[in-house]
Amino acid sequence: MEPRLKLWLERNGRIVMSEYRLRLLALVAETGSLAEAAERMGLSYRRAWGKIKELERNLDLPLVESAAGGVGGGHTTITAEGRDLLRRFAEFQTQAEAAVNAAYERAFTRDRLQGAGNS
Amino acid sequence: MEPRLKLWLERNGRIVMSEYRLRLLALVAETGSLAEAAERMGLSYRRAWGKIKELERNLDLPLVESAAGGVGGGHTTITAEGRDLLRRFAEFQTQAEAAVNAAYERAFTRDRLQGAGNS
Repeated sequence: MEPRLKLWLERNGRIVMSEYRLRLLALVAETGSLAEAAERMGLSYRRAWGKIKELERNLDLPLVESAAGGVGGGHTTITAEGRDLLRRFAEFQTQAEAAVNAAYERAFTRDRLQGAGNS
Repeated sequence: MEPRLKLWLERNGRIVMSEYRLRLLALVAETGSLAEAAERMGLSYRRAWGKIKELERNLDLPLVESAAGGVGGGHTTITAEGRDLLRRFAEFQTQAEAAVNAAYERAFTRDRLQGAGNS
């Protein structure tokens, strides 16, 4: 038996960060291209753009900057605020997962529950 | 901004406990009646019964016992194993939530992220 968890952040009842959104932002940071990030996530460019704009509105922070033109078209970079959010959420995720595993061990690996405990 | 989480347990890739399932089992324990528990969760009796049987199969543990008859029909009680699982999952949940909140505080309440930090 093993613990599983899903984490996200809300602000005023709206999702402002999740594992999915983290992945999209991290791909923008990594590739410098929203088109490329969207493609790797199997999203349309329009949908990926919409997600990021929604996050920016809900967080009241700029997360990406776009520059048009140049050879090969425009590119999208992540802002300092976006990078900070990514770093913090990744840290939160890592620590939360470790803590949840520890809580599981404490609650479930003392005697009893043999049926489920041995798998 | 605030952290949110969803917790569940899997065994061999199958869900064997979740907040929803915990609630159903806790209602059986509380009311002594699967029909009553199902009604309070807005489930059909058949569906509630199916959920519990599925959990028992996946966990390889008996969780409830049914006794037919008597005035007012049969009743359903929770087994020692079921009670143990309930207690442990509730403990896991409480500790995991506290730990996730602490991880959030550590990751997010140091300087920066002003836009989101003040809400």
